[in-house]
Amino acid sequence: MSAAHPPLRILMIGFGNVGRKVMEILSVARHRFPGLTRLHPVWVGVFTRSRGALARSAGLDPQDVLQSLPAESGVPDSHPYRTTLTVAEAVQQLDYDILVELSVLSIEQRGEPVVTWVREALGRGRHVVTANKGPAAFAHAELSATANRAGVRFLFESAVMDGAPVFNMARHALMGSRILEISGILNSTTNYVLRRLEEGSSLAEAVAEAQAAGFAEADPSLDLEGWDAAAKIAVLANVLLEGRVTPPEVARTGITGITPADIRRARDRGCRLKLVCRARRTETGVTARVAPEEIPLDDPFARVEGSGSILRLETDLMGPLLITQENPTLYDTAYGVLNDLLSLAAPV
Amino acid sequence: MSAAHPPLRILMIGFGNVGRKVMEILSVARHRFPGLTRLHPVWVGVFTRSRGALARSAGLDPQDVLQSLPAESGVPDSHPYRTTLTVAEAVQQLDYDILVELSVLSIEQRGEPVVTWVREALGRGRHVVTANKGPAAFAHAELSATANRAGVRFLFESAVMDGAPVFNMARHALMGSRILEISGILNSTTNYVLRRLEEGSSLAEAVAEAQAAGFAEADPSLDLEGWDAAAKIAVLANVLLEGRVTPPEVARTGITGITPADIRRARDRGCRLKLVCRARRTETGVTARVAPEEIPLDDPFARVEGSGSILRLETDLMGPLLITQENPTLYDTAYGVLNDLLSLAAPV
Repeated sequence: MSAAHPPLRILMIGFGNVGRKVMEILSVARHRFPGLTRLHPVWVGVFTRSRGALARSAGLDPQDVLQSLPAESGVPDSHPYRTTLTVAEAVQQLDYDILVELSVLSIEQRGEPVVTWVREALGRGRHVVTANKGPAAFAHAELSATANRAGVRFLFESAVMDGAPVFNMARHALMGSRILEISGILNSTTNYVLRRLEEGSSLAEAVAEAQAAGFAEADPSLDLEGWDAAAKIAVLANVLLEGRVTPPEVARTGITGITPADIRRARDRGCRLKLVCRARRTETGVTARVAPEEIPLDDPFARVEGSGSILRLETDLMGPLLITQENPTLYDTAYGVLNDLLSLAAPV
Repeated sequence: MSAAHPPLRILMIGFGNVGRKVMEILSVARHRFPGLTRLHPVWVGVFTRSRGALARSAGLDPQDVLQSLPAESGVPDSHPYRTTLTVAEAVQQLDYDILVELSVLSIEQRGEPVVTWVREALGRGRHVVTANKGPAAFAHAELSATANRAGVRFLFESAVMDGAPVFNMARHALMGSRILEISGILNSTTNYVLRRLEEGSSLAEAVAEAQAAGFAEADPSLDLEGWDAAAKIAVLANVLLEGRVTPPEVARTGITGITPADIRRARDRGCRLKLVCRARRTETGVTARVAPEEIPLDDPFARVEGSGSILRLETDLMGPLLITQENPTLYDTAYGVLNDLLSLAAPV
């Protein structure tokens, strides 16, 4: 461990597939990734909402955590580092440098309780890295201001397009140019379902298939009604266009109303239906929408398949720039988190 | 002018379309681009190879330069700031902070005389921004080492994909991940010509059309024989894969041997022919090639049209990432230069 790269004390909230993969890459598999040698995590706490929690100020053994907190079950009562602290207490009381927050988005609760945890961690002068869209979708301006006052950072690279470096690119690579308009296909469940509708499935069949293929959640309504896409375009609008748009303020049409006739009409016009997210600057602020659109077959948006996604940025100083992510895996989401951790380990 | 952003004294070599556009954006049109307010250029010299040169230590008036050095003719003998210094003398003797080098690539001369100018400017402790592929294609490792020793920067964002922030993204946004393989369609003349061949034109007709459309140079052989593409993949291999590949070392097949039968065969297999650049790490180093390839119609590479370009990056930590540039204009190449100047004005 080099003095130039001190240990990062991490409190992790949420320990599902992404959290496990982050820990696995940084411990078990780290020798395979030479770019990660600068990261020296000390896992001071790993908390879940329903499967218990582990905490140890001197650092948990990641291999033990991976075994003791499997995806399917909780921490055994006998574990020496089992804790009964709540997540809220852990955020307020534990001694950590970075909160790594990997819970799922709640639209109904306007991103809570995660927004509160993030606010409290930042207020205590701790960095926050989150894969959750909620904090930046519902409270980006406030949380960024809190982070600035405390001299820490609020990072969420994996909230949109998994690990594709959307926010880092906009922050560091588009210097001098002003993003005017954003569009994208950012939700894979709807993309998969629309494809199956084109192939003749009913909506119910297509959704069941998407669930079987691992795209869709047990409750797919967040995807089908466009809420997940709305949260993503809200984050993009808030960060890249300096907007103040929350998901309920996004003009939103999902795909549950799409009929076979709609699909046929699009095909007859040489198009495919895609759920497209859009945001742009206007005279009076920033507007955002999510809606199915007919996309001509020769548009790159028409070619996005499976779990892939695409984002088009239009700026004042250059022609449209497209970023496409092909078939991301769990590694990609985990990479977004690692990318943020590396930003904190060696700020650029 | 704010004290936080001191003036940048610029010596510009080459004053064709890109140079004129850079100067125009930074002077005549700068009020339209709020992101450029940090740039305060002082034009200490503008040199061309055959149309004369202007120099003034206190700074030339950009509007006067744009009028006095039109694209079609040279500096009038009577101009008060006309100079008879050669480019080499200007690089060695003038007092500037940044050499902005916009000459064209010479493969036959292995990037000279530009490589020498860049080496001398860096050796004098001056930053270099170039849109020319030659220096990074023929001497990246050496020039970067010279820049590091002198504490200055050697930047060339516009050398590949115009202003699309390829190098800035790789430098700042892909933290911790290692690029293993690069592929792309990076030359628009060949892309245009292949398209016209598909539509039934002969090679000679297609080239004449590409020239008329403004894609191809008067001597199109650099494009058709794959040299321009080879120079671009050499730059990418050297910078993103830490290779030491010069354009003559790229395994190179151009498109002059493509026959109507080749085109038909590709179409019969559901493919299109595209001139594809590839580079990758191997056990023994970095290899690079340029060759026509049959690309399936549903691959994003098959959809690149006109002056567009596409780049696919494969890394160890995430799924393939694609960057597509749609229909770039002169603004895009100029933006690459501006992006580099902004990096120097406010290093990140």
